[in-house]
Amino acid sequence: MNTEEQAIRKLVADWHSSTATGDVDAILPLMANDVVFLVAGQTPFGRDAFERGLRSILKTHRIESSGQIKEIQVSGDMAYCWSHLNVRVYPLSGGASTIRSGNALSVLRKQPSGAWQITRDANMLAASSDA
Amino acid sequence: MNTEEQAIRKLVADWHSSTATGDVDAILPLMANDVVFLVAGQTPFGRDAFERGLRSILKTHRIESSGQIKEIQVSGDMAYCWSHLNVRVYPLSGGASTIRSGNALSVLRKQPSGAWQITRDANMLAASSDA
Repeated sequence: MNTEEQAIRKLVADWHSSTATGDVDAILPLMANDVVFLVAGQTPFGRDAFERGLRSILKTHRIESSGQIKEIQVSGDMAYCWSHLNVRVYPLSGGASTIRSGNALSVLRKQPSGAWQITRDANMLAASSDA
Repeated sequence: MNTEEQAIRKLVADWHSSTATGDVDAILPLMANDVVFLVAGQTPFGRDAFERGLRSILKTHRIESSGQIKEIQVSGDMAYCWSHLNVRVYPLSGGASTIRSGNALSVLRKQPSGAWQITRDANMLAASSDA
């Protein structure tokens, strides 16, 4: 595994762990300012909408995400990462959790600093009876 | 627009036109042998399953697809294309057509021949009341 792939794997792991701890400020630098999130049935949205949505959910819920990286490919300052993700959302008030699972395809760009950031994210998660 | 982007735009246009005429043999060379199609609620599938599924649909339906390319980015022999697609399926026996629309994010790889092929395809189309 080369260093670029290692860096991208660390980014994905950091995303999961910062989601679990609800640390939105640690997630935002993992995406580019001009990131676009693509989800079925929704208008594409960017970083501000992602942040607002996540902060809103975290007021009343805890999120546990996990995943398996299926593939990372790098070409110059562009890369993509295909993952299979499981996202479980627990109401802080108790009660049943909900699970969404499925594939995600993210495009990443290497910044002049050398850090990778997610720039395009295709989310194909669907409601699931179990992870 | 550079020549790589032009080639990818032609691939997308060829895909639409060959879908409309039901020319599956013309669509298959536009994807890599190891292509992976990612769709919500489905196990990822490859070229053979794509071909079987498309040939099966075309026995009883006609497909009209159209789309707007939102972005193409190229880095070396890797590229991605983000499109918004509308796919309308007409039963050959008559009756109501169905429409799916939404965003797709495709990763492409440049072959040694210089031709681009789709290698990963994230499909976020959802049932739509109109295109």
